[in-house]
Amino acid sequence: MLRIAVLGCGRIGRMHAENIHAHPRAALAGVFDVVEGASREIAEKLGVTAFASADAVFASDQVDAVLIATSTPTHADFIEQAVAAGKPVLCEKPIDLSLDRVKACAARIAGTDVPIMLGFVRRFDKGHAAVRRAIEAGRIGAVHQVTITSRDPDIAPDAYIEVSGGIFRDMTIHDFDMARFIMGEEFKTVTAVGARLVSPALMDRCDDHDTVTVTMTTARGQQCVISNSRRAVYGYDQRIEAFGSGGMAISENHAETNMRLYGASGTDQAPPLLNFFIERYAQAFASEIDAFVDAVETGTAPAVGYEDGHKALVLAEAAILSVREGRTVHVKELD
Amino acid sequence: MLRIAVLGCGRIGRMHAENIHAHPRAALAGVFDVVEGASREIAEKLGVTAFASADAVFASDQVDAVLIATSTPTHADFIEQAVAAGKPVLCEKPIDLSLDRVKACAARIAGTDVPIMLGFVRRFDKGHAAVRRAIEAGRIGAVHQVTITSRDPDIAPDAYIEVSGGIFRDMTIHDFDMARFIMGEEFKTVTAVGARLVSPALMDRCDDHDTVTVTMTTARGQQCVISNSRRAVYGYDQRIEAFGSGGMAISENHAETNMRLYGASGTDQAPPLLNFFIERYAQAFASEIDAFVDAVETGTAPAVGYEDGHKALVLAEAAILSVREGRTVHVKELD
Amino acid sequence: MLRIAVLGCGRIGRMHAENIHAHPRAALAGVFDVVEGASREIAEKLGVTAFASADAVFASDQVDAVLIATSTPTHADFIEQAVAAGKPVLCEKPIDLSLDRVKACAARIAGTDVPIMLGFVRRFDKGHAAVRRAIEAGRIGAVHQVTITSRDPDIAPDAYIEVSGGIFRDMTIHDFDMARFIMGEEFKTVTAVGARLVSPALMDRCDDHDTVTVTMTTARGQQCVISNSRRAVYGYDQRIEAFGSGGMAISENHAETNMRLYGASGTDQAPPLLNFFIERYAQAFASEIDAFVDAVETGTAPAVGYEDGHKALVLAEAAILSVREGRTVHVKELD
Amino acid sequence: MLRIAVLGCGRIGRMHAENIHAHPRAALAGVFDVVEGASREIAEKLGVTAFASADAVFASDQVDAVLIATSTPTHADFIEQAVAAGKPVLCEKPIDLSLDRVKACAARIAGTDVPIMLGFVRRFDKGHAAVRRAIEAGRIGAVHQVTITSRDPDIAPDAYIEVSGGIFRDMTIHDFDMARFIMGEEFKTVTAVGARLVSPALMDRCDDHDTVTVTMTTARGQQCVISNSRRAVYGYDQRIEAFGSGGMAISENHAETNMRLYGASGTDQAPPLLNFFIERYAQAFASEIDAFVDAVETGTAPAVGYEDGHKALVLAEAAILSVREGRTVHVKELD
Repeated sequence: MLRIAVLGCGRIGRMHAENIHAHPRAALAGVFDVVEGASREIAEKLGVTAFASADAVFASDQVDAVLIATSTPTHADFIEQAVAAGKPVLCEKPIDLSLDRVKACAARIAGTDVPIMLGFVRRFDKGHAAVRRAIEAGRIGAVHQVTITSRDPDIAPDAYIEVSGGIFRDMTIHDFDMARFIMGEEFKTVTAVGARLVSPALMDRCDDHDTVTVTMTTARGQQCVISNSRRAVYGYDQRIEAFGSGGMAISENHAETNMRLYGASGTDQAPPLLNFFIERYAQAFASEIDAFVDAVETGTAPAVGYEDGHKALVLAEAAILSVREGRTVHVKELD
Repeated sequence: MLRIAVLGCGRIGRMHAENIHAHPRAALAGVFDVVEGASREIAEKLGVTAFASADAVFASDQVDAVLIATSTPTHADFIEQAVAAGKPVLCEKPIDLSLDRVKACAARIAGTDVPIMLGFVRRFDKGHAAVRRAIEAGRIGAVHQVTITSRDPDIAPDAYIEVSGGIFRDMTIHDFDMARFIMGEEFKTVTAVGARLVSPALMDRCDDHDTVTVTMTTARGQQCVISNSRRAVYGYDQRIEAFGSGGMAISENHAETNMRLYGASGTDQAPPLLNFFIERYAQAFASEIDAFVDAVETGTAPAVGYEDGHKALVLAEAAILSVREGRTVHVKELD
Repeated sequence: MLRIAVLGCGRIGRMHAENIHAHPRAALAGVFDVVEGASREIAEKLGVTAFASADAVFASDQVDAVLIATSTPTHADFIEQAVAAGKPVLCEKPIDLSLDRVKACAARIAGTDVPIMLGFVRRFDKGHAAVRRAIEAGRIGAVHQVTITSRDPDIAPDAYIEVSGGIFRDMTIHDFDMARFIMGEEFKTVTAVGARLVSPALMDRCDDHDTVTVTMTTARGQQCVISNSRRAVYGYDQRIEAFGSGGMAISENHAETNMRLYGASGTDQAPPLLNFFIERYAQAFASEIDAFVDAVETGTAPAVGYEDGHKALVLAEAAILSVREGRTVHVKELD
Repeated sequence: MLRIAVLGCGRIGRMHAENIHAHPRAALAGVFDVVEGASREIAEKLGVTAFASADAVFASDQVDAVLIATSTPTHADFIEQAVAAGKPVLCEKPIDLSLDRVKACAARIAGTDVPIMLGFVRRFDKGHAAVRRAIEAGRIGAVHQVTITSRDPDIAPDAYIEVSGGIFRDMTIHDFDMARFIMGEEFKTVTAVGARLVSPALMDRCDDHDTVTVTMTTARGQQCVISNSRRAVYGYDQRIEAFGSGGMAISENHAETNMRLYGASGTDQAPPLLNFFIERYAQAFASEIDAFVDAVETGTAPAVGYEDGHKALVLAEAAILSVREGRTVHVKELD
């Protein structure tokens, strides 16, 4: 049994705590949150320790590994602490909103053999992963074009958006990782366009965008497009299409049920798409824990490493620069 | 060019006339209808002769073949006349509502080498035909169960229903033919149940049913189910499923367009199904003419012969008897 | 916390044990199996008691309720014991293969207020349940025709089939329950046809059928068709269609992923259907436990009661009689 | 009857000739081709005049209107001749490969009241048009993102590609028009990336690309992405997605039939997509003739005018410049 403590007892932290609790080869070693009530509630429900501080978690010999689901500004610090404590860490994305901080953290933990896994959960979605496997099995030949559609069901509260670091660092970051995962190559250029169509006043205030399209190319000319919107009224729109010399693989949306209704208006109604990530990626979140436990148990490198978090952020920075200057950005400008 | 005259200028006759006109190896030799205005209108529009009588059609040396789209009670007579005149005939279903009349006609035309084709148009539908071809190619192995769903978008006018001969002879007749076509075997037993759920008063008056389910078995135990309704508010529901030892083939419904709408209610709306048979089976009606021209030109037997019309009617009679007596009927009882 | 013990540690019992363990308002109170190794394994894995006997379970004051997942011949006895011990019981279907035994058990437990729930798990499937809810919400009007397609991915081992009680009592029993659940009415007539197409020698030996079609009607003439096969090579085929005066609702199959592949052969490949019931009905099995816990906690009647198990078996007996005598059977003949 | 002559008897010209022949309110007034055999063949088949020269067509008082389906370099000349002759003209796209020539032609025909319609046939596709209608009806709210996927089943012969004017002027030109049609707005910026992945040697020789992605924005920030490939091994991939504040509308691909196969490998096979434009857009080509006849008969402006041909070419030029210089191009640079 791998004893994992969870830092951060917000919605995601609680979900992770329950997944660890239910995992056959993992045990929930305890939880911590800066808001004491939050950690106590989940600790009582699952019958585990509520740690008094993050330091206590890292110091505890009852904790084999940690899952970091705290607020973004604490991620890099906790990764460094986990490495110092020799505790394998599964950290929610992003590592940090600042590329400099990400680089500094990288420098500090350089050479460590403590496993660090980044929580790019979508890699563990069965459908998305099946697209990647189809590519690896040569079923669509060489990949030429990847199209990622990723739209949230609704914009987050103002308070969240204001500290999110902007759409590219907060939301597109997942898609930058998927683009690298699906394409299996690094990108060379990034061109992004952004608009304020969902919540213009908020976007003006935050100098942010709610509707963006990013086009990226690899050295060989392969192309990837990401379409993001902060609000898709029909639900959480999560699709991936990979087109290649030998075919095409598509990971389609998930609906609440497989029930279809053919009504008096002569139309066919499918159920709403699953809302939101907790429901849509439930299987992926559980598989992510599984992959982390596997990596730690077998001593193999985690499927998603620190470098993946770093590289996704570089693409986000390139997109920000591209929108700001209205031009195509070469990724190497940011390295 | 095969010069074909059309008898009957109702909705189906007009459509056939236009399809013959547009066919590259056929010419419309003229039209006839007991209502003179009906034939004159289509004759003028397409620039062809409006014959004064059916006799004139059969006597004309400008007519190589005839298509019969008149009212049902005239079909058997016209088939006999066509055979007597040596003119190949494509006759709309059914041959007649009376099994005795069908047998009498069969006796009278026995031995003729004049091609007679029955208008079971659904055999020419690309999707339905693809199911049959998949079976013939062994792609689903031995056929075990066939399911035919066939529901009209709305019940026909009272005046039509009253002289229709009842749902089994009028509507299910198509499905009996499809069952034989898809299964590729003759049926041994027929069990039918019927209800008056769509238009109870009319059904009571006509001693008819508007909602029926027919189960048929072959000598080897293979099973076929037909589900009919006189009214499907969502449109013309025409599906065929063949299940076998090696797989399953399904011919799905046709919608007006391939446009799908994901609306604010979080649902997905497909366009209405095509209404009605003229639209839904447009491709099939054109292919049917093609098959008739082919058969006449090459001297091969038509794809759907007189016997097919006869056998479908026997199954209809068996279904009627089954409902009346509340029991399974052996087809041989009716032969 | 409702402390539930599981009797029977086969594949289904183990799954139930894990679902109870993971349930937020239930605790696994222990397990029992006649094969001691089976119960010990699951007890150790989940850290619970392995009871030495069923009697010990019923006698234990650490057990609030029991889940019966033992072999069919023990079900009725254990239901009686549970009622005698005052412990709410969730029993896997069927109650018994003998209608007499089911009636005798009913007589013995008559008047009890101990909650008894039958494990017709499909009622808890989100898609199937959504069809029922659509009906209750009037979205398809009055129900006219229900079509249930239910085909196993492969025939069970000979040893299982030989003691199964035949396809109607073993496999169709689920569909008889779904038919009643979806239709919301009792059936009046049953006509069944059966064939030996999948495994003829085994079926001959057991006087059983592997391919059956059942047609049932209600007093009002509504129709229900069930299509069963012991082997669908393309996977576990589980579909329900309800057609009514105001529309149609369909619960479609579930595939392993939502990934679709468009290959060099110009075709589109969806992933295989989920195999088998443990995977396909995973959500339903978890929801079933939830419903049981709810019913016990709130003192409300379970969603599926003893009578539902009884009535499904009556329909199975009617189908057996119908095939044997080649005729339509009136359900009241068996009451 | 509108008497229309067809100039150019290649594959497209022949199809147009047949569609005119079949149209109820149009007549085929004759055909012309520089290759005499080509025009004679179609003239004989359809029983019409084979004109000896284009001049003879424009001079004929038996010709009310002309359809231009000759090689691209002749289009602008023939448009000018048609206008001079006062004959309404339906001209295949593009007007010319040279923007200067398009502007010169525009200047010469300025102020004419002779109807000029451009053959952007996809606007007449029922599915694509339904997307536009859904937008006009406000069913998806304000349009935020449009995604056009347009991939040919295979690359055209070298000889064709060499004189095509490059992928943007030859292939993407249709998508530029669709982008304007669907979005209902003009674009302000164009960013295109191109690669040589399908046929690198040929592309090198022609300084062309076979795999391109174009991103365009409007003044309000709305975004449109076009994904093109010269070869999609799974067939002719033609999809349009419009995403807006109130929903999403998608026009999906068309398959040869609605037959689906569930095979022994546990997969589901849909039929191949329709190949190529003649089959895929058969309905649209017929509707296009209809729209032309309507416009001429009613004296209303054609649905697609000369300016639409002009503007699509400007976007093509912008894309060419964008790829050449690796930067975002402002459309006004090219006006």
